[in-house]
Amino acid sequence: MPLYGAIEAGGTKFLCAVGADPARPEQLQRFDTAVNPLETIANVVAYFEKRGPVDALGVASFGPLDFERGAIARTPKLPWQDFPIRASLERALHVPVALETDVNAAALGEQACGAAQGCTDFVYVTVGTGIGGGAISGGRLIHGLMHPEMGHLPLRLHPGEPAGFRGQCPFHATCLEGLAAGPALHARWGSPAEELPPEHPAWTLEAFYLAQMCFSLACTLSPRKIILGGGVMAQAHLLPRIREELAALANGYLPLPEILTPASPAPALQGALALARSLVP
Amino acid sequence: MPLYGAIEAGGTKFLCAVGADPARPEQLQRFDTAVNPLETIANVVAYFEKRGPVDALGVASFGPLDFERGAIARTPKLPWQDFPIRASLERALHVPVALETDVNAAALGEQACGAAQGCTDFVYVTVGTGIGGGAISGGRLIHGLMHPEMGHLPLRLHPGEPAGFRGQCPFHATCLEGLAAGPALHARWGSPAEELPPEHPAWTLEAFYLAQMCFSLACTLSPRKIILGGGVMAQAHLLPRIREELAALANGYLPLPEILTPASPAPALQGALALARSLVP
Repeated sequence: MPLYGAIEAGGTKFLCAVGADPARPEQLQRFDTAVNPLETIANVVAYFEKRGPVDALGVASFGPLDFERGAIARTPKLPWQDFPIRASLERALHVPVALETDVNAAALGEQACGAAQGCTDFVYVTVGTGIGGGAISGGRLIHGLMHPEMGHLPLRLHPGEPAGFRGQCPFHATCLEGLAAGPALHARWGSPAEELPPEHPAWTLEAFYLAQMCFSLACTLSPRKIILGGGVMAQAHLLPRIREELAALANGYLPLPEILTPASPAPALQGALALARSLVP
Repeated sequence: MPLYGAIEAGGTKFLCAVGADPARPEQLQRFDTAVNPLETIANVVAYFEKRGPVDALGVASFGPLDFERGAIARTPKLPWQDFPIRASLERALHVPVALETDVNAAALGEQACGAAQGCTDFVYVTVGTGIGGGAISGGRLIHGLMHPEMGHLPLRLHPGEPAGFRGQCPFHATCLEGLAAGPALHARWGSPAEELPPEHPAWTLEAFYLAQMCFSLACTLSPRKIILGGGVMAQAHLLPRIREELAALANGYLPLPEILTPASPAPALQGALALARSLVP
């Protein structure tokens, strides 16, 4: 029975696991993301040499990614920019390595063993420090020019948007991420999302923006489910509010509020195991 | 060599053709769409009995469509609502019939013999009496809960939008279709699109809205091409303006303006032939 390796590669931490079944990542270990990528890779390689040998490795990485070169394309962490993460792991571990964005991997995890089992057409979105999504259509991930960049959808402003708030996205100011990711909540209201009580007007705006996102996703991708995860979605009162706003926005045109679904606890790591399994079934 | 039949089924006319090659629809004939669907079907059946026999038939239809039942789901033309167009043609002509939305068929036509040959990830959008789109990902049409409804994307209003203009969509007022389809231009400016000169402010707003649409499509679908067709796009000065607005909106984030591509002259009918060919290769 093959043993698979998984890495959830983030800007602040690398999470490693092994497992025979994507549903059960085991022996989890966390490494801080070092300034020098070679240092992080050395830690990761030592982990898999000790826990393995694994037959294949799946990597769910922060992005954007350049799939042709198997590299992180553009990041403010400059030593990581253009770092060939896929080839460096293949060479060090002598196993095939599959690389995906963290959100695409999370979509694969939801499909393999989470909220989208048996579902061939769905979207996974995480709302946290950033906003990003992965889409499965006809059972397969959507790729193209690069990968979806759902966090940068242009949005209509809520009339209650505080005067002077300019949005937090360095590229587009008031795109989805600039208006509704964790840092936007913090900048607009002066407190992090987890400290804003349910009755705070922050959540009216947040539900309005995330409902617009869901409606745009429905209009373009026609998903059977929209799975919502990430730190901001941990507020249990938020999902029902998004459903309400979405019903108002769709105005009966599409049967949408019922397709919103909460995410599983750790879909990206499970998706990384599923990616590894796709290489060595 | 098989002979294929094609129907482009619209709310005002049905266009029929036969052909052995999707690139060359032949013997085109037009029938007005009758109030009673049985009357239109009788005309169509007589056409194919005379021009055929065909081995398979592809239908590019106005929608929305209910694919499970092979029917037009909801239309103000009430006798057509829930009319089982696929089964009624199969029974009358004794050949397999494939049904798609007109815009999905147009996408297939662009893929088979138009602007998207060899492209596996692209979107086709028509901007005319309505706005609708079809998307191909990994070489295949995106379906899901139903089919994409790109015409209903929520949009940010242009600051130059005339006071009092409320948008023309009966469901969402100021969605994409409500702001940028032909009837919206006519209602806002008092003249149909084809009579508005290139220097009219109408086109500044139109380019702004269609650029937003293109950016939303890029963020969600990651297409390698966005193919733009339909009566409003017949204004040759419009595409370069959309490219300019899109460059401003994307702000360097994605290499987008160059992916905009003009549509072929009759992609839906070609796509209907390609659909028929997919049934009897």
